Amino acid sequence: MLLKELGEFGLIERIRRATPTGRGVRIGIGDDAAWLEARNHSFLITSDLLIEGIHFELKWTSFYALGYKTLAVNISDLAAMGTSPAYLILSLGIPVDFKTEDVEEFYRGIRALASRSGVSLVGGDTSASRRFFISASLVGHSPYRPITRGGGKVGDDLYVTGTLGDSALGLKLLKKRGARAKEKFSYLISRHLFPSARVKAGTTLARERLAKAMIDVSDGLLQDLNHLCKASGIGAVIYEEALPLSRAYRTVAGKKGPLYALTGGEDYELLFCLRRRDRNRLEKIKKRLGVPITRIGKCVPAREGTKVINRKGEQRSISVTGYDHFRNKR
Amino acid sequence: MLLKELGEFGLIERIRRATPTGRGVRIGIGDDAAWLEARNHSFLITSDLLIEGIHFELKWTSFYALGYKTLAVNISDLAAMGTSPAYLILSLGIPVDFKTEDVEEFYRGIRALASRSGVSLVGGDTSASRRFFISASLVGHSPYRPITRGGGKVGDDLYVTGTLGDSALGLKLLKKRGARAKEKFSYLISRHLFPSARVKAGTTLARERLAKAMIDVSDGLLQDLNHLCKASGIGAVIYEEALPLSRAYRTVAGKKGPLYALTGGEDYELLFCLRRRDRNRLEKIKKRLGVPITRIGKCVPAREGTKVINRKGEQRSISVTGYDHFRNKR
Repeated sequence: MLLKELGEFGLIERIRRATPTGRGVRIGIGDDAAWLEARNHSFLITSDLLIEGIHFELKWTSFYALGYKTLAVNISDLAAMGTSPAYLILSLGIPVDFKTEDVEEFYRGIRALASRSGVSLVGGDTSASRRFFISASLVGHSPYRPITRGGGKVGDDLYVTGTLGDSALGLKLLKKRGARAKEKFSYLISRHLFPSARVKAGTTLARERLAKAMIDVSDGLLQDLNHLCKASGIGAVIYEEALPLSRAYRTVAGKKGPLYALTGGEDYELLFCLRRRDRNRLEKIKKRLGVPITRIGKCVPAREGTKVINRKGEQRSISVTGYDHFRNKR
Repeated sequence: MLLKELGEFGLIERIRRATPTGRGVRIGIGDDAAWLEARNHSFLITSDLLIEGIHFELKWTSFYALGYKTLAVNISDLAAMGTSPAYLILSLGIPVDFKTEDVEEFYRGIRALASRSGVSLVGGDTSASRRFFISASLVGHSPYRPITRGGGKVGDDLYVTGTLGDSALGLKLLKKRGARAKEKFSYLISRHLFPSARVKAGTTLARERLAKAMIDVSDGLLQDLNHLCKASGIGAVIYEEALPLSRAYRTVAGKKGPLYALTGGEDYELLFCLRRRDRNRLEKIKKRLGVPITRIGKCVPAREGTKVINRKGEQRSISVTGYDHFRNKR
């Protein structure tokens, strides 16, 4: 059935209400506002827009994956502050020719990650729209002091969780070969479609006060490193050979080498600064982070800028370009 | 200058940062998430989508008015819970051919009401988009127990703040006569473009525990009354002659009588239930509400449904239709 055959308060409302409501929700969906408990007298909130044709293509993304990713990218922003997620506010602009099953699939993707992450859907709005778009806000509790982008100091080590560039490579394969790339390159493509937010790593690093500045890699390593450096008033050196690359990445990237790892977006790994004196402490808790971590560089004075060097100390020249929505190209 | 000549982190970011940051904001715009203080261990959050061509027309709405109204409608939702607003999260989809002045005007409208209402802009996202749309979430503190839609009982009186139908009539005039209607019908049109959220009335009624169920009139009196009745498990009788109509309304509505007051949307007045024994208490604090209030009906058993009667006790037959976005008509 098509959405235009339904009222706004028909199926969509029923689907939303079907999402389980967890701890801390005093009043959920269905009144003028949600009433929510805050622990520790404070909370964190992050927000993301995802628009069809700009942030995703329905050609190669399932509605289920899109729901899952919508929540994952917001969880990742909270993880980068050292915070775990709690309440989701989800607004959708939906084309009237969408099938109700499409919308159900989207919510199924949301629910799959929400129930695993302890997230309750507490509100939002829906409207007809020409293109599909998603506006999500996610609230998290802050048991520890949140980690900003601004605490890095000259001399700190730079670490990153997981591997870099898989998602960008997965997207490239989808663009080039369409959905049929999914079988052969399932690892890289699932890294793009179903990113993992590093909540355990983020909250552990915050609790142990190990990460002094942190950001999630969503625009690409160099771009996000620049944000962190700017906020901290520092520069950085990245060791090209130290970049953590997956086996699938090495096989597929070929001559492009670390290019996607340096500039590709949507890794949703965490990049953080660590005081050198904390290296041993980090070693000891490494296993509790739930994901490998790799030292990839160090913080230097701001005047030295941001550079990537190889083993011989030679500098790689890379133009750092992030995604610019208003130019609509990388 | 057009937006496509700017980066996303150019002017828009500067405009957002220019919005003053108030009390309770520990970390504002510019990191992965905002960090906010919660009073009384809890908070409320509401959310609204506004899409060009569906919720507003740029033909007769200035960007300033649109910014103002975006915030006002969200404040109204919080007022209907008896809550005052604190933090705004604002995401915008902006066509690339918009001028930067347009976006600045929009934020000026936001700022005008934000600074008057003690609201801080704490986050959000921006992206290019084919049509202009606005997704706003607003967080409020709850010093008193929030008032839901579900506390009405048979025998309660029904009250409404301000006057009804002005906004719908103002919109009708704009549609029919365009912007040149603004001079002659300035009152009705400003009620449509610059609605007043009834924060003082809402919070006072919550503090005094007078309103037992409350909702803001955004979809039209009968539509929102139905929401309240459904949540409370009651029916209602509305006295047609008691409906508060402005002088401008009476002049313009003519033969249509109370039609716009009953079914027109976007009044952003508060509709609430009061126990009959509290009539005297309400009389005493009336002046502190900041807006006139009028008794317009009473709550009856659910089986009697919702009806409008005139002085002679005759029932007016009105089909209650709200705005259905997916059918795109009233």
